[in-house]
Amino acid sequence: MDFSILGYIATFFSATSFLPQAVKTVRTKDVQSLSLITYIFLLSASVSWFSYGVYLGDIPLMATNTLTSTFQIIILFMMFKEKAK
Amino acid sequence: MDFSILGYIATFFSATSFLPQAVKTVRTKDVQSLSLITYIFLLSASVSWFSYGVYLGDIPLMATNTLTSTFQIIILFMMFKEKAK
Repeated sequence: MDFSILGYIATFFSATSFLPQAVKTVRTKDVQSLSLITYIFLLSASVSWFSYGVYLGDIPLMATNTLTSTFQIIILFMMFKEKAK
Repeated sequence: MDFSILGYIATFFSATSFLPQAVKTVRTKDVQSLSLITYIFLLSASVSWFSYGVYLGDIPLMATNTLTSTFQIIILFMMFKEKAK
């Protein structure tokens, strides 16, 4: 078995993991149990990984973190929008 | 500036990001707005990254994903416990 496939599996789950949360949050407008600090940290991580990807010239790292950042920005936008009501 | 510091910043935020969510979820017992699929995918990603770290002999990758897995397991445990009520 070629164990480098683990990196691809990990990348797939990392890239797509926040899509269901973004869909759920946009649909239900329910942000009550979400941690704001967690999403600020997650977006900070994604932006740092993306920048590190640019520095390394690593396309998969940039692509993955473009996806995660997008979903996290949607979730954070909903948190600010729904909490402000 | 040594841009490799971006990797350390990203690792710090990745490793600690789910701690505030775990604390909030354990304290409030409120899991209503959390996406189950997101947490199953996140744990799958962490376990895959950890295994890839073992394959590469990469200690920081193993350490980071031990932390994220732990917090994600706590959050998933709370989700099953509180939804089952």
